[in-house]
Amino acid sequence: MPQASLLDQHGSELFGPHNLPYGVFGTPGDPARRIGVRVGDVVLDAAAAARAVGDEAVAALLDHPVLNPLMAAGRPAWERVRAAVGRWLTAPELYDAVAPLVRPLDSVELHLPFEVADYVDFYASEHHATTVGRLFRPDGDALTPNWKHLPIGYHGRAGSVVVSGTDVVRPAGQRKGVDDPSPVFGPCARLDFEAEVGFVVGAGSPAGVPVSQQAFPEHVFGVCLVNDWSARDIQAWEYVPLGPFLAKSFATSVSPWVVPLPALEAARVAPPERDTPLLPYLDDAALPAWGLDLRLEVRLNGHSLSRPPFSAMYWTAAQQLAHLTVNGAALRTGDLFASGTVSGPGAHERGCLLEMTANGRDPLSLPDGSARGFLQDGDVVTVTAWAPGPDGTRVGFGEVTGRVLPARVP
Amino acid sequence: MPQASLLDQHGSELFGPHNLPYGVFGTPGDPARRIGVRVGDVVLDAAAAARAVGDEAVAALLDHPVLNPLMAAGRPAWERVRAAVGRWLTAPELYDAVAPLVRPLDSVELHLPFEVADYVDFYASEHHATTVGRLFRPDGDALTPNWKHLPIGYHGRAGSVVVSGTDVVRPAGQRKGVDDPSPVFGPCARLDFEAEVGFVVGAGSPAGVPVSQQAFPEHVFGVCLVNDWSARDIQAWEYVPLGPFLAKSFATSVSPWVVPLPALEAARVAPPERDTPLLPYLDDAALPAWGLDLRLEVRLNGHSLSRPPFSAMYWTAAQQLAHLTVNGAALRTGDLFASGTVSGPGAHERGCLLEMTANGRDPLSLPDGSARGFLQDGDVVTVTAWAPGPDGTRVGFGEVTGRVLPARVP
Repeated sequence: MPQASLLDQHGSELFGPHNLPYGVFGTPGDPARRIGVRVGDVVLDAAAAARAVGDEAVAALLDHPVLNPLMAAGRPAWERVRAAVGRWLTAPELYDAVAPLVRPLDSVELHLPFEVADYVDFYASEHHATTVGRLFRPDGDALTPNWKHLPIGYHGRAGSVVVSGTDVVRPAGQRKGVDDPSPVFGPCARLDFEAEVGFVVGAGSPAGVPVSQQAFPEHVFGVCLVNDWSARDIQAWEYVPLGPFLAKSFATSVSPWVVPLPALEAARVAPPERDTPLLPYLDDAALPAWGLDLRLEVRLNGHSLSRPPFSAMYWTAAQQLAHLTVNGAALRTGDLFASGTVSGPGAHERGCLLEMTANGRDPLSLPDGSARGFLQDGDVVTVTAWAPGPDGTRVGFGEVTGRVLPARVP
Repeated sequence: MPQASLLDQHGSELFGPHNLPYGVFGTPGDPARRIGVRVGDVVLDAAAAARAVGDEAVAALLDHPVLNPLMAAGRPAWERVRAAVGRWLTAPELYDAVAPLVRPLDSVELHLPFEVADYVDFYASEHHATTVGRLFRPDGDALTPNWKHLPIGYHGRAGSVVVSGTDVVRPAGQRKGVDDPSPVFGPCARLDFEAEVGFVVGAGSPAGVPVSQQAFPEHVFGVCLVNDWSARDIQAWEYVPLGPFLAKSFATSVSPWVVPLPALEAARVAPPERDTPLLPYLDDAALPAWGLDLRLEVRLNGHSLSRPPFSAMYWTAAQQLAHLTVNGAALRTGDLFASGTVSGPGAHERGCLLEMTANGRDPLSLPDGSARGFLQDGDVVTVTAWAPGPDGTRVGFGEVTGRVLPARVP
């Protein structure tokens, strides 16, 4: 009787042949970083598998400690590798060669999957931007006049991007209450998370040449989850006029698995109706839709806080890519752009505590009897997501998680 | 009769033994990038010199296509290499070995000297911030309430940092005049430069551990010139609430020579009197002064526009470094932080056209009879600088220059 295929053996609904996300892992016995593909709850050592089946061309793309060389190789190479991995996992004649190269997920250490070039954070949820605008600028319009004309974004600190599971030290910094005569220094008192979705640029583009929305799948390699940790009190004091700086730059966590863009074909949906005409480079009315039906969930210490729907985002990632390059900015392999906090219209669809608690005024009650306006030391924040896959399946993103450590202030 | 030393032969007042800046060069016959040291108007092939004199340990630090490995090695290594270079250039017995390894400056191509990790741009000139505040926010206070409490900064696009001499394509983007009913798209109509000074981080620091002002010379490898090209019309429309984005991210030019920090000992001066008490991590009243007496000059098509004094900057680079890490943000080798536009109080001490022309209202008259509110296609902007050196000498920075090419809009 022939062996079962590796997919039959290990594949799950969330991590089956339709998903095959990439990550970077090591093991206690062999800590060298190498590329892995997740199947169910195991990790396939991808370059070793390529060599085991004699596919040297694919092995050359995979035999690296980060995804960047594969990402830089461009879409035809991504398709070739994805097809090859699917073949290794299903062909009965390859079972004996490949089966020894899987490791249980709980036996490996997962690392940052790619070297981040530039990190950009957008602000694409109308619900989030409206709520935040009301809280931070109570005397003005909730949305700034530019908000529906362009996807607002800013550059974050690429060197502070860390992989899920990395502890986050509570930042210290300046804050100033409206009634304080001058700022005070100390640990952030309003530490927050932001549940976001990140888009990872594979193929770069030269300076001076804008990238159109249509070229989105030629440049974006895949999608991950992001927690953009935020110090709200530091942010409120520092952000006028040049934007958030230290309130964000201490840590940004990303999930260890990058879901290939083709795995999300079945999740593509029309974005929400836009009520403001768009300039041609942003207009997507006549283009294939790049809204994405990702269902996020935010948990605090294991307790589910909310289920933000990514499909409610006003701006798509294709629009964000077109905007960020329309001035001629070059793309580099490893550029990461995140969506901004994912928040839907519902009370249980908000992606950060700032919104859930009205800037701390209405604390959440947790099942253990405690209350949270903002995060306490020791809190563990976890964001997970899934998307519809083909034929009634689902595509899993795994999770991005992190624990808050106390500030290190003398 | 003994040979003259290489310094006697080539050294100049601006580029003598007290300076010895590092860059990366190639030649038409051997385009491979390698580290060079500038002496007068020649470039010494540094790794080749180290090997020629048998200094293999120093050669290992210098034999790279970028400065990053040397920068990462830390201050004791920087001192060792600097001392070695000085020895090679002066010891008569090394003349025959080293002399063949110099190239005329006009025969080499200069490249980006280091790989940029994160790029941060500050806003440290009180004169600049006051003038810009009046222009952009005529109904509010010129300085925002936080300005004298912390050095305001934001992250820019590291991937858009280019070496002096790189042409800059005029960006296109959205702008909206106050009376326009909706934004329009097109080439930037208010393209500007910003004359700045950049600080290059050599030795990194771990996440969670702030870097004090006292540790500034342990982390900062050297200093370069920066032109932070700016699209004022794009900036005015996009920058609320998250700061400048596409108005800056198309290009930032840096000089090809990084002046080692120890070359600026004689240029250290007290910063201007501060009229607002500072929190302890920023207070430098009792610390060695890190104001720097750099004399900048801005030229447009060869015509001198202004001489901005860096000594007038309200915030020092040591304060900026302490601020950018006080939240626990890690430093990486190759981090670049720039001062913000250098502007002094005088009419001919301003570092950008926005200030010189009151946002285009009072155009400059150039010697060729033309006028400039902002930059025209074909304009060449050049920023140079020097600082006092030891014993009445001067330390040259060379220049950062770039030409504006027309926008590429279909």
